Amino acid sequence: MLQRVDVRFIKTPEEVGLKNPIFIEGLPGIGHVGKLVADHLVKELGAEKIVEIYSHHFPPQVMVMEDGLIRMPKNEVYAVSAHNNAPDLLILVGDFQSISSEGHYELVNAYLDIAKKFGVKKIFTLGGYGIGRLVDEPYVLGATNSKELMDELKKYGVRFEANEPGGGIIGASGLLLGVSYLEGIEAACLMGVTSGYMVDPKSAKAVLDVLMKILHIEVSVEALEERAKEMERLIAQIKEIQEASMQQWKSDEDLRYFR
Amino acid sequence: MLQRVDVRFIKTPEEVGLKNPIFIEGLPGIGHVGKLVADHLVKELGAEKIVEIYSHHFPPQVMVMEDGLIRMPKNEVYAVSAHNNAPDLLILVGDFQSISSEGHYELVNAYLDIAKKFGVKKIFTLGGYGIGRLVDEPYVLGATNSKELMDELKKYGVRFEANEPGGGIIGASGLLLGVSYLEGIEAACLMGVTSGYMVDPKSAKAVLDVLMKILHIEVSVEALEERAKEMERLIAQIKEIQEASMQQWKSDEDLRYFR
Amino acid sequence: MLQRVDVRFIKTPEEVGLKNPIFIEGLPGIGHVGKLVADHLVKELGAEKIVEIYSHHFPPQVMVMEDGLIRMPKNEVYAVSAHNNAPDLLILVGDFQSISSEGHYELVNAYLDIAKKFGVKKIFTLGGYGIGRLVDEPYVLGATNSKELMDELKKYGVRFEANEPGGGIIGASGLLLGVSYLEGIEAACLMGVTSGYMVDPKSAKAVLDVLMKILHIEVSVEALEERAKEMERLIAQIKEIQEASMQQWKSDEDLRYFR
Amino acid sequence: MLQRVDVRFIKTPEEVGLKNPIFIEGLPGIGHVGKLVADHLVKELGAEKIVEIYSHHFPPQVMVMEDGLIRMPKNEVYAVSAHNNAPDLLILVGDFQSISSEGHYELVNAYLDIAKKFGVKKIFTLGGYGIGRLVDEPYVLGATNSKELMDELKKYGVRFEANEPGGGIIGASGLLLGVSYLEGIEAACLMGVTSGYMVDPKSAKAVLDVLMKILHIEVSVEALEERAKEMERLIAQIKEIQEASMQQWKSDEDLRYFR
Repeated sequence: MLQRVDVRFIKTPEEVGLKNPIFIEGLPGIGHVGKLVADHLVKELGAEKIVEIYSHHFPPQVMVMEDGLIRMPKNEVYAVSAHNNAPDLLILVGDFQSISSEGHYELVNAYLDIAKKFGVKKIFTLGGYGIGRLVDEPYVLGATNSKELMDELKKYGVRFEANEPGGGIIGASGLLLGVSYLEGIEAACLMGVTSGYMVDPKSAKAVLDVLMKILHIEVSVEALEERAKEMERLIAQIKEIQEASMQQWKSDEDLRYFR
Repeated sequence: MLQRVDVRFIKTPEEVGLKNPIFIEGLPGIGHVGKLVADHLVKELGAEKIVEIYSHHFPPQVMVMEDGLIRMPKNEVYAVSAHNNAPDLLILVGDFQSISSEGHYELVNAYLDIAKKFGVKKIFTLGGYGIGRLVDEPYVLGATNSKELMDELKKYGVRFEANEPGGGIIGASGLLLGVSYLEGIEAACLMGVTSGYMVDPKSAKAVLDVLMKILHIEVSVEALEERAKEMERLIAQIKEIQEASMQQWKSDEDLRYFR
Repeated sequence: MLQRVDVRFIKTPEEVGLKNPIFIEGLPGIGHVGKLVADHLVKELGAEKIVEIYSHHFPPQVMVMEDGLIRMPKNEVYAVSAHNNAPDLLILVGDFQSISSEGHYELVNAYLDIAKKFGVKKIFTLGGYGIGRLVDEPYVLGATNSKELMDELKKYGVRFEANEPGGGIIGASGLLLGVSYLEGIEAACLMGVTSGYMVDPKSAKAVLDVLMKILHIEVSVEALEERAKEMERLIAQIKEIQEASMQQWKSDEDLRYFR
Repeated sequence: MLQRVDVRFIKTPEEVGLKNPIFIEGLPGIGHVGKLVADHLVKELGAEKIVEIYSHHFPPQVMVMEDGLIRMPKNEVYAVSAHNNAPDLLILVGDFQSISSEGHYELVNAYLDIAKKFGVKKIFTLGGYGIGRLVDEPYVLGATNSKELMDELKKYGVRFEANEPGGGIIGASGLLLGVSYLEGIEAACLMGVTSGYMVDPKSAKAVLDVLMKILHIEVSVEALEERAKEMERLIAQIKEIQEASMQQWKSDEDLRYFR
């Protein structure tokens, strides 16, 4: 039995034992910048999976992995315990955003509920800011629900531009900021400027650089480019095959009216 | 935690202390006539915000404001206390109508629930009546759920034409009239005739003129044209950037099937 | 407060006092044949309105009537008391079918719930069977959930053809038969063969003729043609204006992202 | 009254009395391979119908059968008692998959709930793997949620290929594997490679051959080709008429805005 939004704790907040962790979101989005950075952090920091999130708002399908085993669409939260003067971290990564408009709201409610259970007081959502042309030297555009956080982020080189992105911030990266505000939680979105045409490791590196300074952590960035290439390969492959698959599913739709 | 329709009172009806207020709705719509008039009234009358309304039926995104701070999509109710022989007012303004069909019904239920908590007995919804060509001398077309109110409004120059608008009145401006009828509340929609092609301050002025007579209020109309220009500028800018943004979001949809 | 499916009894079953009434459904559909016949019966038999049905599954709008007063989208049930050897009747007429797929199921549940409250044991749903070309001598195609009812209807000239209509019967006229079956209620759909291109009074007359024989009633058919013409006029007018209106609403959609 | 997902037991698990039955799913899908195999098994094994499943997630219509009687869209579960050294079986067949994305999740919850009530420990879902070109010698592609089951299936000639199908497995055949995994139930999907352009009895035979070996059953495959032809005929007929019907329904949509 899978609930509409089905949050499954592998470890309870008590078992994990974090102190005022900072919550980082990096789900699929423009240029997959956010996902690339968050996946990278999970790997490089050896983060531990503590929550799985399933939902009726994800596509109604399973993926087949390299070993022929299937995988349910899911998002996951990983925990990193503080070392040196870095803060404890919770990192939300995963396969999908909601495929329906209402689902975005329901999922963000669930993400924030998890964050609150862990005593989160500050949230960073990661994303791309697509400008439709190639970017030589990507910078990081910020948006936030807190004047204080804005001032802090500016020190790290994050730029804030009036009414940018003009179209707003769509999906979890945006809504998390808005609902956090209503809950009294400071939150900012860090967007790597990118063309929006491909998985962009350069843009991801810009975001990662800023994030490392903010969080007082240091991780190798070498694997980032390799990871982006791998991601690009997978996407190309999936797109190609999926188009074929979709074709058939659609041509098959007439057949649904059957018997 | 954001409810499907999330009504948050900043002040209770008792704290606001209005007497039989008249409820005015001016949400986005054809030519943004209704929104223009209602926003104008809120500013010119120095109205006080007393309710915020969030909803899963609004687009799943936040907007970025001039100062780089984000803003959740929301609608708001403002209160104006009576002066001279004008009645107390409640004014519903905001960012969005529902993006789903069912959502319109749920939001209108919430609007009326607020109105009833304040003892509202009469409602005016404001809108545009698009006729597809430029209008030299816009007039105000009315539609109502009450024969008495119709007779009253005719005295102020509001025209009632058989079966007009032919396509009915879509969204909150229309449904509020219908559901009000079932609740025994008098309600009328005042529609400024407009081309429908642009934000139309002339049409808004026509509606405002009638409304001022009905409500025995007087506000400057000077700012109206400036406000319309500002609105037009914002919309043009948003449309342009949003198209780009939508493009990317869509080209990104294939990538949602990922990992 | 309007429920998702909001059934409002004007008179209770006890007040109406019918005995085993036959339930007739004639909502908008192919060629408006069913609606034309059912509306005609309500008028000619002087039926009394006893139930109003509102729903979030209807379009989120109000219509403006000839007198400038608005009208909420609604469906209605009328009662006719038996005279001579005719049975008591309940007639479901109205403005709309559901605009969502799930809504059809929820509304049909409500229709059947009403029917059961009145002790209904037999249901006739009325519709058109569009064949895509002009029909000189329309006949009545039947479909039913009961072998006994089929045999009875054949005596009245209703034809039953294997697998026709091939595409099934969509909407309330079809679902009512299916869900009735599960509730142990006999039900049949009477479909006037029609081109499907226009409101078809000839097809409606064919259905009416059969229905009069089945129900042992006699009503004038003269007004039928006039009623169809009136319906056609209204539809033409509404379509024209609505297209304009929709155009504007759509061009206005970009503006919904505003402020 | 029809629930959103309405499961009706004709016989209780106790009355049926199966021991650790294996659950087989064969609903409409690519090349109708799964449906063809499952329908064939039900007929050849003389399986007994024990559950009917109705749902708001199926199309809002009824079909008209050869005898002129209507049929509600429904799925069904059949039971086969073990003979020789074959296991007990539950076979899920039916008319439709969900027409909405969320509905897939709700229906799969219901299917698994039924399976669990019968003590099911192993599930096989049947489908087609469309490759967009004619296939001379179809083989069976597998995907599973269990390494042990994979090893077992390989012995029967089922192939497992990395990341195939690339687009994942959409609908009940896929989701059943994913949700089963979370419930601790072994499950595999057996996909007959097929063009995807037609009902494919050759592909179905390949799946059936494997399935017979796995289940230690033997059924005649002669009727399979005849059944596929019959299915193809029905689909061609339905598609043709349905297109006409859809045309009318759509051209009729404008008329829904009426009265």
